[in-house]
Amino acid sequence: MKIIFNKTLFIRLMENINLADIKTPDDIRSMSIEELTKLAAEMRSALIEKLAVHGGHVGPNLGMVEAVIALHYVFDTPKDQIVFDVSHQTYPHKMLTGRMEAFTDPAHYDDVTGYTNPEESKYDLYSLGHTSSAVALAAGLAKARDLKGDSQNVVAVIGDGSLSGGIAFEGLDYGATLSSNFIVVVNDNQMSIAENHGGIYADLRLLRNSNGTAEPNLFRSMGYAYRYVNYGNDLKSLIEMFRSVKDINYPVVVHINTMKGMGLPIAEADKETFHYSGPFDPKTGVSANAEPAKDAPEDYSEHFAKSMLRRMKENDKVVTITAGTPGVLGFDKERRQDAGRQFIDVGIAEQAAVDVASGLAHGGMRPVVGFVSSFLQRAYDQFSQDIALNKQAATFVVFYGTMFGMNDETHLGFFDISLLSNIPSLLYLAPTCKEEFDAMLDWSIKQTKLPVVVRIPGTTVLSNPEIKLLDDYSKPEYDIVREGKDIALIGAGLMFGAMSQAADILAKQGINVTLINPRNLSTLDTATLDSLKNYKGVITAEDGIIDGGYGQKVASYLGESPVKVMNLGLPKEFLNRYNYSELRNACGLTPEQIAGSAVELSKM
Amino acid sequence: MKIIFNKTLFIRLMENINLADIKTPDDIRSMSIEELTKLAAEMRSALIEKLAVHGGHVGPNLGMVEAVIALHYVFDTPKDQIVFDVSHQTYPHKMLTGRMEAFTDPAHYDDVTGYTNPEESKYDLYSLGHTSSAVALAAGLAKARDLKGDSQNVVAVIGDGSLSGGIAFEGLDYGATLSSNFIVVVNDNQMSIAENHGGIYADLRLLRNSNGTAEPNLFRSMGYAYRYVNYGNDLKSLIEMFRSVKDINYPVVVHINTMKGMGLPIAEADKETFHYSGPFDPKTGVSANAEPAKDAPEDYSEHFAKSMLRRMKENDKVVTITAGTPGVLGFDKERRQDAGRQFIDVGIAEQAAVDVASGLAHGGMRPVVGFVSSFLQRAYDQFSQDIALNKQAATFVVFYGTMFGMNDETHLGFFDISLLSNIPSLLYLAPTCKEEFDAMLDWSIKQTKLPVVVRIPGTTVLSNPEIKLLDDYSKPEYDIVREGKDIALIGAGLMFGAMSQAADILAKQGINVTLINPRNLSTLDTATLDSLKNYKGVITAEDGIIDGGYGQKVASYLGESPVKVMNLGLPKEFLNRYNYSELRNACGLTPEQIAGSAVELSKM
Repeated sequence: MKIIFNKTLFIRLMENINLADIKTPDDIRSMSIEELTKLAAEMRSALIEKLAVHGGHVGPNLGMVEAVIALHYVFDTPKDQIVFDVSHQTYPHKMLTGRMEAFTDPAHYDDVTGYTNPEESKYDLYSLGHTSSAVALAAGLAKARDLKGDSQNVVAVIGDGSLSGGIAFEGLDYGATLSSNFIVVVNDNQMSIAENHGGIYADLRLLRNSNGTAEPNLFRSMGYAYRYVNYGNDLKSLIEMFRSVKDINYPVVVHINTMKGMGLPIAEADKETFHYSGPFDPKTGVSANAEPAKDAPEDYSEHFAKSMLRRMKENDKVVTITAGTPGVLGFDKERRQDAGRQFIDVGIAEQAAVDVASGLAHGGMRPVVGFVSSFLQRAYDQFSQDIALNKQAATFVVFYGTMFGMNDETHLGFFDISLLSNIPSLLYLAPTCKEEFDAMLDWSIKQTKLPVVVRIPGTTVLSNPEIKLLDDYSKPEYDIVREGKDIALIGAGLMFGAMSQAADILAKQGINVTLINPRNLSTLDTATLDSLKNYKGVITAEDGIIDGGYGQKVASYLGESPVKVMNLGLPKEFLNRYNYSELRNACGLTPEQIAGSAVELSKM
Repeated sequence: MKIIFNKTLFIRLMENINLADIKTPDDIRSMSIEELTKLAAEMRSALIEKLAVHGGHVGPNLGMVEAVIALHYVFDTPKDQIVFDVSHQTYPHKMLTGRMEAFTDPAHYDDVTGYTNPEESKYDLYSLGHTSSAVALAAGLAKARDLKGDSQNVVAVIGDGSLSGGIAFEGLDYGATLSSNFIVVVNDNQMSIAENHGGIYADLRLLRNSNGTAEPNLFRSMGYAYRYVNYGNDLKSLIEMFRSVKDINYPVVVHINTMKGMGLPIAEADKETFHYSGPFDPKTGVSANAEPAKDAPEDYSEHFAKSMLRRMKENDKVVTITAGTPGVLGFDKERRQDAGRQFIDVGIAEQAAVDVASGLAHGGMRPVVGFVSSFLQRAYDQFSQDIALNKQAATFVVFYGTMFGMNDETHLGFFDISLLSNIPSLLYLAPTCKEEFDAMLDWSIKQTKLPVVVRIPGTTVLSNPEIKLLDDYSKPEYDIVREGKDIALIGAGLMFGAMSQAADILAKQGINVTLINPRNLSTLDTATLDSLKNYKGVITAEDGIIDGGYGQKVASYLGESPVKVMNLGLPKEFLNRYNYSELRNACGLTPEQIAGSAVELSKM
């Protein structure tokens, strides 16, 4: 017997894995389980090191290191196609597909986005940041493969938390009709962003507790073959399972039981806080740059949560509703407990959040739903049909409705004005400060005639104790904060501040302009606008896209008058990781720029 | 033993039921099964008589006569609350709740809408015309009841076809978390509008075939107790079952097996045609007023289906997709068979339709999805994230995007321009005639860079052989059809016709205006608009709401120019059963009115 000394293998076995050597998944495909295990450990260490200084999606990525390795190990990516739902598992994926440096070298930490991104890599099929779509997208890819007579594997990876979104169900329902290879990996880490809510989670628990053998079985009832991996962080189990379903010729769900936050004790212990986190001390979990300073300014989430707790105590008909993002509403665990049954989390299910609010309002309750701007668009039909058409007096608070919020292309807060303000019977309010926010919310909860949306930025609160508040916001009634002539500045929501500063700048130049807070973005105060018809110019500014927005309503209404109208706002574009002040400048939204525009308009 | 002669009872037993005596559900609650059976027969006869001359939702209502009687018989309506999904079962409900005359007296046939309507009756909780929302709405009502400490039954009635919609799943998932009375009646008539599509339908079949005993069981897997009624048109079985779940204190699904179209042989035999039908001969099923005249004008559905069949034959990469409404796309059974695997029905699941199209486009296919204007809004997030942001070159055809389409408040085709044209990277085209429609569709299918939406009205096709067609519609390039001066008329889509006629009227008065077909509603042709800046006036007209629409973009762009801009279109309102010509007149959209407005503008 001749023994050939394999130098490469010897070195590999002797040394730790060098992450820098991993350029493509091919580089891991000849590794042994032991090597892959080392690889996982090193990737996890690198991830923790980066996350601690950089922040990001901590728990979901740490829990999926082994599964992502196993997927790329078993499947022939990029020929085999993997769609990662909402991209919350894609840091390990990026590490294995040519972007390792972005996780090992601080100088390159920002080279990659936090989401899959086809512009970064051919291994990334979609730019995804909203949950629950991966199964339907993958089903479309599988159908294309079948129609073309190709033969690659198509895999969707989706978390248990994302399963509650309606599009996940629609995708599963359609995917089950494929008579061909279709593999859905359900990453069950027993968590949504916060804890899970919904009837399906009892079934997932039953399946976990029975090692996948119990009935009823949601996935089998939808037409899928079903496999279960109890040790979803064990490479050997995962690889064996993925090998067993590779090239399968019918739809199958592979349910893997993983640990969110694995390898970082604080993240394992507090899964909600470490779903997404800013920089933190990996030992203590204390946020590195959010020392709770006594005089730290309150943000709108904090302000909202505190005021809602008060309102709920004062009135047992008031309920606060979230669709899986309680933290955005400022409701941490303690506050949720404090609110008791008056706080409702429907899970990641924006459509249900709106319809449940509609039912609650119909039943005499006073529901207040909080949404991230970018996510509320998942429930447009429910806003239109079940709230507005049916005139159900529910209140909706739009968080991060602003250019100063999340700046990933998948999470932009630019579109909600054009989306919601054009729905009939839906009142869209934009407070300019916390006092106005409180007054609008108090009024909306008190009244029982109208559905109301209130839009706030994801910034620290502004205060303006001198703001003129109304007892009733149902009719459009602009606040003429300063009365001047020739030029009127109408600043909606957060943009009122810049307009007010522009008015100050102009005043110093001896130009007295009219300054208006419109309050209401869905219906024009035509009496006030009529009074501007013989002005030289009107400038509107809003913290959202100009197209379909508030300013265009003003331009249209004043279109037949001599007054010139200039609409300021954001471009209709999917910007990605933009720089806030550059964007503001590019849009002419600084006070100085606005003042300059006013001077120009007055000379036209 | 003393026998008291009960005259009322005697008469009841001897005579047929007099439908006119049924004013409220109380009037049926003391009836015997025999009487209820007679009642069902008479209601069914009346329904068929009305439907044959009036048209409406035939099959779904005929199949639910017994179940609706049993529901009102057992449950204490209106205290007990029943939400009927999409209202397709509500004719018998209306008959029992004070609106019998509208089904027995031709003079009153139009007194009621085709949907539940709270303005008609306190027994109608919602105005509903979009599928799949009833469970989530009822869950909200049940939650309100629990929070208030009330005790009524809350019942959602939903068809098997509607179950595929994501909001149905979200509602079921949330409803299962109620620890209280919550009754979901699943009306399984083995049909959607057309046949069902989706993995869950195999499970429903399994349950029917096993008399409800089989596993897996979708509803149990979601956390519901489960009951099955095999004879869902048998009053006794239904009443017993509903009695057994009345006042139950946990969520339960009652799965009833009914026959769509029951009692009308042609509707039983051809369930798809008789889901919704215009007037027909109840014996032959032949439509009373749609004699297939040789010279009958083609409508856009016919035109679309024929041209897509041709395209699919020419190119095996082209696929046509519907979300449960193949008839709207002109694809009857024969054409679906003709198209074979190139025709895809994902079931009532608009979100999946968009995402599957995204996957197909990504996989190199050329998908064309057809939607009813009012239903596409259910997939806004998928349009935004999975199509536009990801620049997937799928094509979408919007049917009934018009004021001349369905005029029920739940089915308005007014909102799609403002909804879709404000999404970045999504090209929104509005052809003015069939030749232009064909050219836009051909181009869109050929190109692989851009997602494209093409909007057509639900009218007969217009033909304009002289239309100037483009080889490439990706860049906004307005068609200046007639060059005049001072006044420009920009008519989008169907409104181009009225604008063109207005231009003719003006020409006869010696006023030569510029007439423009903008083709593209999502991006402005700024070069052409710049050439109008020194005009006296520009009038835009679109077949949709003005708010957030095309015209307001023009008004905004020209806002700083001397030219006056007038935007014509529809009001931002949920109109209900409006009169088409009255609406057109009220909006100033007749050629004469437009010509008058042009004259006025030119004098300003």
